[in-house]
Amino acid sequence: MELTRDEALNYVKPYLKVKRYEHTVRVADQAVELAERFGADIRKAELAAALHDYAKYKPLDEMKRWICEDRRLPKDLLDYHHELWHGPVGALMLEREIGLHDPEIMSAIRCHTTGKKHMSILDKIVFLADYIEPGRDFPGVDEVRDKALTSLDRACAMALKNTIVFLISKERTVYPDTFHAYNNLI
Amino acid sequence: MELTRDEALNYVKPYLKVKRYEHTVRVADQAVELAERFGADIRKAELAAALHDYAKYKPLDEMKRWICEDRRLPKDLLDYHHELWHGPVGALMLEREIGLHDPEIMSAIRCHTTGKKHMSILDKIVFLADYIEPGRDFPGVDEVRDKALTSLDRACAMALKNTIVFLISKERTVYPDTFHAYNNLI
Repeated sequence: MELTRDEALNYVKPYLKVKRYEHTVRVADQAVELAERFGADIRKAELAAALHDYAKYKPLDEMKRWICEDRRLPKDLLDYHHELWHGPVGALMLEREIGLHDPEIMSAIRCHTTGKKHMSILDKIVFLADYIEPGRDFPGVDEVRDKALTSLDRACAMALKNTIVFLISKERTVYPDTFHAYNNLI
Repeated sequence: MELTRDEALNYVKPYLKVKRYEHTVRVADQAVELAERFGADIRKAELAAALHDYAKYKPLDEMKRWICEDRRLPKDLLDYHHELWHGPVGALMLEREIGLHDPEIMSAIRCHTTGKKHMSILDKIVFLADYIEPGRDFPGVDEVRDKALTSLDRACAMALKNTIVFLISKERTVYPDTFHAYNNLI
């Protein structure tokens, strides 16, 4: 698979709402900027970002079947909010559909919502680009944007902190990978 | 081992600072009150509470040796703050020293600082008694005390929320059992 940016964006476009597609384009741009800043593979960052939300609007039943049937997907995902499913499931759908096999890109797509214990630089870039792309507007995002100018790890730690505190304030469960990512970066 | 309350308190007293001993007596009283309210074994609650901080001031080197050498202690404790060690290590020290074998009491002592995934009623009572005993005075404790009048699970969930948010606000790591306890109670 030697996908270009435009091929990746065109592949996901029909499956996304317009706003979500526009978000995806901004995440791709943001990921390129971060990859340049922190010395990651720019092409991989751009592709992973372009593909990251592919499964966002897939039917829940379909995603549930993937989680039940593919041994590479942790079954405990079913115990947590279905918002967490589209990353891990999307990476495997893309593997089957377009022959996406690059383990670094697949990892970044998988963990873009939750983070995970030992995040690679590419994982961090896609996670952070998704959090700070210019269309995002929630409490604390500007502080994370500022931090992202100088430290990828510190910016990711701040984003994870905000996410955990937000979820707890809403009395929602927090997927263990998110805690592991936080502990690992602190 | 058929320890009385006074025997348990007298056993731990020489190892505790005066303030910590007074705290221990209050936790025992609080645990009895909660056990009566929520239908737990009053004697076990009282004993577990009387013994819960036994290892609080044991030398760090000694506790570290226990963690390294006793297969029942998770090695990852060493990666987290030593404040978390005295519960798990204390339960095993008491097993050796005074023949404490009751698995319910040992469990409640072990997890009184961190919580754990599937807490028993006794685990919750000692955890909560330690958090709300009348000498405690920190933000949010009165709300947890109020909740403890009616719901053991909700009060524990509030205490865990407060603990996690406090640790994150201080940029400290959070032991995974604490997250599991929170997710499990939410």
